[in-house]
Amino acid sequence: MNRLKEKIRREGIVQEGNILKVDSFLNHQIDPVLMMDMGREFAERFATAQVTKVLTIESSGIAIALTTALHLHVPLVFARKKRSELMKEEVFITHIYSFTKKETSEVSVLRRFIGPGERVLIIDDFLANGEAALGLADIVKQAGATVVGIGIVIEKAFQPGGQKIAEAGIRLESLAKIQSFQNGEVVFA
Amino acid sequence: MNRLKEKIRREGIVQEGNILKVDSFLNHQIDPVLMMDMGREFAERFATAQVTKVLTIESSGIAIALTTALHLHVPLVFARKKRSELMKEEVFITHIYSFTKKETSEVSVLRRFIGPGERVLIIDDFLANGEAALGLADIVKQAGATVVGIGIVIEKAFQPGGQKIAEAGIRLESLAKIQSFQNGEVVFA
Repeated sequence: MNRLKEKIRREGIVQEGNILKVDSFLNHQIDPVLMMDMGREFAERFATAQVTKVLTIESSGIAIALTTALHLHVPLVFARKKRSELMKEEVFITHIYSFTKKETSEVSVLRRFIGPGERVLIIDDFLANGEAALGLADIVKQAGATVVGIGIVIEKAFQPGGQKIAEAGIRLESLAKIQSFQNGEVVFA
Repeated sequence: MNRLKEKIRREGIVQEGNILKVDSFLNHQIDPVLMMDMGREFAERFATAQVTKVLTIESSGIAIALTTALHLHVPLVFARKKRSELMKEEVFITHIYSFTKKETSEVSVLRRFIGPGERVLIIDDFLANGEAALGLADIVKQAGATVVGIGIVIEKAFQPGGQKIAEAGIRLESLAKIQSFQNGEVVFA
């Protein structure tokens, strides 16, 4: 998606350890118009997948999941990293390790929000090791529902997430695929 | 806002301790169309306030802040409850106590995302004791920017948040104001 790639080139900051900061438009400050365009793009790519629900994880997946769900005319659900006091009822739980934060989170979704037979599109902002996306896929499986695909804004194609998703037989759509970082610049696949 | 009130009446669950669960459409599962309508409503109410940025707090403020920012044609920023490894630069920090979770969070925004002279609209899903909204207002003040108002989806008018915001001289717009809960039913103000 060219508009996204241009934005990454212009505003993304490459840091040591293969880290790409895109906090000026994606995951701290947010550009709502770009977010709408990207949601529309996901909705088009999964237009025939008969999606009944979009699933993401808090916090930085929420904005892109919302615009995707809006264009697909379905609700979205965001998995919670911390169970609220209000979530005393039955939940689906999975464990997701974050390489950035170096910690494992217990991630949960209330059972009544994903039913058997649903066709779930998983959406997230970044794909690196695939922990979050595959954790969400595990929740969908526990619900007896189907993962119709995974939509990612920025995939780090040099990390193993994409391969793991392919091995799980799940369709992956990434709006920008990064091949490598060279001299502080992003090289797209 | 009638559509929201109807939704609260139909899907809201009143629990012990004056708790209202609206997780089927607002803060766990999200209804994107209602979210767009509410964002448009905030944009209309603050149309003449010359807003340059929308500010909210992760996670459940993000969706409504996004649709508000979209309709106001400005970016949004969400404050983080936990500093990411990627946020080593200078931040504005405030401390927000959650009565629901019974814990204080250190909440932060990167300094480069709120500048002096900006006109900031604070948006959140719930107002009860006002801790989150006034914490965000404190961040705006630290930045030398102006809070043009606070927009809240559901205000619990029997709790002190609204009064505190009035005393701070800040304009408050709530889409649904709850007067009380009676026999498990919501009574609007």
